Amino acid sequence: MLVVMRSQATEEQVRAVCNKIEALGLRAHPIPGAQRTAIGITGNQGTVEAGSLEEMPGVGEVIRVSKPYKLVSRDIKPDNTVILFPGTHVAIGGKDIVIMAGPCSIESREQAMTIGEQVARAGAHFFRGGAYKPRTSPYTFQGLGEDGLKIMAEVRERFGLLVVTEAIDNESLELVEEYADVIQIGARNMQNFSLLKHAGRTRKPVLLKRGMSATLEEFLMAAEYIMSEGNYNVILCERGVRTFADHTRNTLDLSLIPAVQRLSHLPILVDPSHGTGKRNKVLPMGRAAIAVGADGLIVEVHHDPDHALSDGPQSILPDQFEELVSEVKQIAAVLKRGVVAPLDPVAETVLAVEPTSRPAAAH
Amino acid sequence: MLVVMRSQATEEQVRAVCNKIEALGLRAHPIPGAQRTAIGITGNQGTVEAGSLEEMPGVGEVIRVSKPYKLVSRDIKPDNTVILFPGTHVAIGGKDIVIMAGPCSIESREQAMTIGEQVARAGAHFFRGGAYKPRTSPYTFQGLGEDGLKIMAEVRERFGLLVVTEAIDNESLELVEEYADVIQIGARNMQNFSLLKHAGRTRKPVLLKRGMSATLEEFLMAAEYIMSEGNYNVILCERGVRTFADHTRNTLDLSLIPAVQRLSHLPILVDPSHGTGKRNKVLPMGRAAIAVGADGLIVEVHHDPDHALSDGPQSILPDQFEELVSEVKQIAAVLKRGVVAPLDPVAETVLAVEPTSRPAAAH
Amino acid sequence: MLVVMRSQATEEQVRAVCNKIEALGLRAHPIPGAQRTAIGITGNQGTVEAGSLEEMPGVGEVIRVSKPYKLVSRDIKPDNTVILFPGTHVAIGGKDIVIMAGPCSIESREQAMTIGEQVARAGAHFFRGGAYKPRTSPYTFQGLGEDGLKIMAEVRERFGLLVVTEAIDNESLELVEEYADVIQIGARNMQNFSLLKHAGRTRKPVLLKRGMSATLEEFLMAAEYIMSEGNYNVILCERGVRTFADHTRNTLDLSLIPAVQRLSHLPILVDPSHGTGKRNKVLPMGRAAIAVGADGLIVEVHHDPDHALSDGPQSILPDQFEELVSEVKQIAAVLKRGVVAPLDPVAETVLAVEPTSRPAAAH
Amino acid sequence: MLVVMRSQATEEQVRAVCNKIEALGLRAHPIPGAQRTAIGITGNQGTVEAGSLEEMPGVGEVIRVSKPYKLVSRDIKPDNTVILFPGTHVAIGGKDIVIMAGPCSIESREQAMTIGEQVARAGAHFFRGGAYKPRTSPYTFQGLGEDGLKIMAEVRERFGLLVVTEAIDNESLELVEEYADVIQIGARNMQNFSLLKHAGRTRKPVLLKRGMSATLEEFLMAAEYIMSEGNYNVILCERGVRTFADHTRNTLDLSLIPAVQRLSHLPILVDPSHGTGKRNKVLPMGRAAIAVGADGLIVEVHHDPDHALSDGPQSILPDQFEELVSEVKQIAAVLKRGVVAPLDPVAETVLAVEPTSRPAAAH
Repeated sequence: MLVVMRSQATEEQVRAVCNKIEALGLRAHPIPGAQRTAIGITGNQGTVEAGSLEEMPGVGEVIRVSKPYKLVSRDIKPDNTVILFPGTHVAIGGKDIVIMAGPCSIESREQAMTIGEQVARAGAHFFRGGAYKPRTSPYTFQGLGEDGLKIMAEVRERFGLLVVTEAIDNESLELVEEYADVIQIGARNMQNFSLLKHAGRTRKPVLLKRGMSATLEEFLMAAEYIMSEGNYNVILCERGVRTFADHTRNTLDLSLIPAVQRLSHLPILVDPSHGTGKRNKVLPMGRAAIAVGADGLIVEVHHDPDHALSDGPQSILPDQFEELVSEVKQIAAVLKRGVVAPLDPVAETVLAVEPTSRPAAAH
Repeated sequence: MLVVMRSQATEEQVRAVCNKIEALGLRAHPIPGAQRTAIGITGNQGTVEAGSLEEMPGVGEVIRVSKPYKLVSRDIKPDNTVILFPGTHVAIGGKDIVIMAGPCSIESREQAMTIGEQVARAGAHFFRGGAYKPRTSPYTFQGLGEDGLKIMAEVRERFGLLVVTEAIDNESLELVEEYADVIQIGARNMQNFSLLKHAGRTRKPVLLKRGMSATLEEFLMAAEYIMSEGNYNVILCERGVRTFADHTRNTLDLSLIPAVQRLSHLPILVDPSHGTGKRNKVLPMGRAAIAVGADGLIVEVHHDPDHALSDGPQSILPDQFEELVSEVKQIAAVLKRGVVAPLDPVAETVLAVEPTSRPAAAH
Repeated sequence: MLVVMRSQATEEQVRAVCNKIEALGLRAHPIPGAQRTAIGITGNQGTVEAGSLEEMPGVGEVIRVSKPYKLVSRDIKPDNTVILFPGTHVAIGGKDIVIMAGPCSIESREQAMTIGEQVARAGAHFFRGGAYKPRTSPYTFQGLGEDGLKIMAEVRERFGLLVVTEAIDNESLELVEEYADVIQIGARNMQNFSLLKHAGRTRKPVLLKRGMSATLEEFLMAAEYIMSEGNYNVILCERGVRTFADHTRNTLDLSLIPAVQRLSHLPILVDPSHGTGKRNKVLPMGRAAIAVGADGLIVEVHHDPDHALSDGPQSILPDQFEELVSEVKQIAAVLKRGVVAPLDPVAETVLAVEPTSRPAAAH
Repeated sequence: MLVVMRSQATEEQVRAVCNKIEALGLRAHPIPGAQRTAIGITGNQGTVEAGSLEEMPGVGEVIRVSKPYKLVSRDIKPDNTVILFPGTHVAIGGKDIVIMAGPCSIESREQAMTIGEQVARAGAHFFRGGAYKPRTSPYTFQGLGEDGLKIMAEVRERFGLLVVTEAIDNESLELVEEYADVIQIGARNMQNFSLLKHAGRTRKPVLLKRGMSATLEEFLMAAEYIMSEGNYNVILCERGVRTFADHTRNTLDLSLIPAVQRLSHLPILVDPSHGTGKRNKVLPMGRAAIAVGADGLIVEVHHDPDHALSDGPQSILPDQFEELVSEVKQIAAVLKRGVVAPLDPVAETVLAVEPTSRPAAAH
């Protein structure tokens, strides 16, 4: 922390602040300036919230300096985390990008199979779909629950797609861990710390979406919660934040991608579907996400969006998805990246087996 | 919903949109205007997300009109909900205002007793304090858990204060329901729909805090989740939202109070501690909250904020709290309101007994 | 400024940063901490933007510490600025609060006289009204220009009200200075630095509205622009900021008032009309503004808002204004403040004469 | 407009609202729904602000439907506006993209020549640089004024670059019109309507930057102000908006580009320098801007950013600029677009002559 004194602060006031800092078990480093004195603070500040320094006479402002994250930080692990999926060649966070696609909600076996086939053919690596849906209204479709998970497992088996789906509480988390390859934590639960801790005790990678008004620091601290429990396979995902702008449902904040990459070793994806909320903006923003350097996309695709039970307006059609994959491949090439090769449902054992040991990326 | 056509839309395009609306099982009402045609839609739109109308040729914009809330709405229940606490004279949402006060976290029996005595003497009706703390960092104090709840129950017994404390997941909810008089759902869990539903199945009033970037509609829909499960005793609470402004931790949005009161019959409190994050702004904003018409305050008070394990900088001191209660009383009088009389720990049976029947306010 | 090094930064990297700081003509103060080194910078940083330090190897972050404001700051002038109006007893920023009221736009002589009479009778001290209107659309009413100013001068003479009105460019500024008692700079022009400088060369007090997304620092720096040209009579005004919240036109940020009062000696008013954009929220937020400690209000009043040429929906009716003045008086009393006594149009010479010397508040 | 009645509104209340609408000279179209009645309004609503309908008994909400823009709209002009620069082959808004580059401020003849040569060689078409600088603090460098304009004219002559520079008031506008090829209106002046109108009377294209908290509608209306005065050559520019996010100086809102393109025929550029405020994010966001479909970039380049008098931290170095141009060219190709060929300073007469007639794009 740094205490900035007012310009007319007396020497006594400076001394009183220093004394208080020392009394809190920390060390004070006064830096006299041309106009005012600043006081640097060192020592373990974890257990002390010295904000009440702000109320002392002569104090202008208290600025927090040290960042609270540890495991998520490049300071601890300079190399990128690459998340591997045993039995497959798929890696997230490596040189090549990955694509996750599927409907907002699993509505029926038929719907899932239809869309699963289409996105697999177009080059997706993961099938996304909700079995547990956090909906704004209690009166709208809330997901098929475990039946939805079973359908997704069938899509995996049939089309060779890995499965990513959301857990909304500690109960659904257990089932999602059992059926899925990646456990998603949604934006609304980004600071559901109980759920984060439980996810940290699972043995599957976790896709963590940025909360609607989360700062970069809060986002990284949410990942830290998961990692602090021993699960180091966290995939971050930007999905738009809440601003005054009303031409999109959320404002997709693509500058977060280089900002995360500077501070953290974790991979980061972009969700242009929730990020815009409008079908006609998914392709442009999907292209932009790859151009900015994201490690992949997660996209909502529906073959019949007019009758989708959720998020129809932001789901793209299968042929739009094909076009997106093609454009994304070309843009990745500009950044000297490729797209991970599609899974081969025959040759590769895409089974949701519990990994026997922590993936190599963790240490 | 209302579909606004572009000014150069052809008659055929208008007809196509009307046909699609009817095909979705709804009724179309074209309204030809001077410059463009608008098409009103009636019928049950609950299960259809007709947003893909937006993609049809000639369509300019689709505007959602009907509001999704039911039980929270004044349309359903024109009179204010007044929440009673059996065995006491305390009511929330009535003519008089209530005051909840206490530390951010329960840190020890001694701390809780010291603060409990002080806030009781100054006129508080509820003792607030966290036993389960949602903290941004996994490395900071996370609360005493059930031990904290037991301490709060002791504060209740000794000083005649009702108890309000936060549940952070379905597990802690059960314990909080057992020990507390009001179950708090924090801002970070405002859209933890699983928790909301479980809270809706409890038999204690729920204090629901507004999420950091929740619109009025989302806030009311979160209350609707609780009510839709049968618990009609919901107390709303404004606690600041996230904006670009950096002179406070959050921006306390006091205009929400009259906005809620126009749409909903539920009582609404204000939390000026989290709403500002700075001790020197708690009194001014606490006064303003009562002036704007809130039904009460929830305030963090600590006798030794420098050594508080959480939120020290925003906790006011006991004598500041006394001053606040005195000012608030005078301002309430300007609005022809009083402050609920303090509880008498001897005469009133402040026991956290499960109410035998739904309070009268529900219907 | 403070440079925070990464935890794994080498000694050489720290030395390189220090050398660069010295090369920029500043002084470096390294503060070694448990985990990382921070480097304080002192010296005149006004002409250097050392942000490129951020790009040096080993640097984690650069934090700006010293605040750029001078004349607006309590560091320079600890006592409140009180703005006097020669020939009258009116003071802004003193113990008592002031009230400015009138229509959004001056529409006609009749309209202005009608409203002027009503607000004078109810206790207003200033007549507000726009002669030059910044409107979002070029096709809506843009104000009567100099004719509007003449009408306002007539209102002053007849009802003993001081006049406040907006200047929108350097041309209108000259006329507004001639006719009005207070020159208003609107939110949209808060960073129209050319206009601010010109306003700083006038000899009338300036009412400066906060820009729609201005931070506290930017707001104070806008005032600094005016003061740096020699006009020390600046009145700040909070009028709502832009956020995601959609239940009001803007989000009135009342916590700005204590924040300004902590940093600056300038008086600050609140505009609950633009701050909410809805008639039914003007009274509650007007009361709250006084409860929080503002030095007064500026309110839109119209006797026939349905036919107002601008801002009808947020204008209150004359009898609502009367009620507001009465409530405000009672709330001010809680804070041991009064409302400035109404002007006497006969006894007091309310003439827009150019003051012969700088008001005493400046020094 | 559309009036949505409350569900319990009586027939009389509906009738009263209809009567009021008719009394305002408009036509009412009641649409009875399952739960509530909505009332569509047609007729010229330009001069009436019917917001006070919101206060009538039984009214739930009033929704504005018709958009106020005319000349900026694709409804009026379905084809893209392409802005030509007489005497050159450069076009903005056509198939190929353009690049504007240069220092934040013109600091000296040497600095401008050095940077001008470098950006010309790397492929820029326009030289950007500020002669009149809107700075947050009155104590920082405010620009060289007309001397800066003269230097820019010399850069044009020597390196065959068109010139774009900002006007900050009506005085500087005249000089900028004389010297520059494109007149820039900055973000802080986006709603300086006086300046917009004056810019609308010039005969040079205007580059209009989005205000820091401007909605899409407000941005288009600002362009409408310019066009309504007869200047149809408006180039829009996204440059980041103000949000809670603190990892960049502003949040660059790239989804605005497809949103603008859907509603308006005007070209739109992106400024990744102000849009992020950090050098290390300019290249990623510059690439993303082209991927999303922008018509070009405007970028700050400085050969010695440590000693830049303004915006050093966000200026990229000349070799980074070269890399950006190269990447942008490849990404444009994915969208089947090219980059406009560089100007030939010998063969093309790049003179800031006043065009003799309105460019063809206007009609």
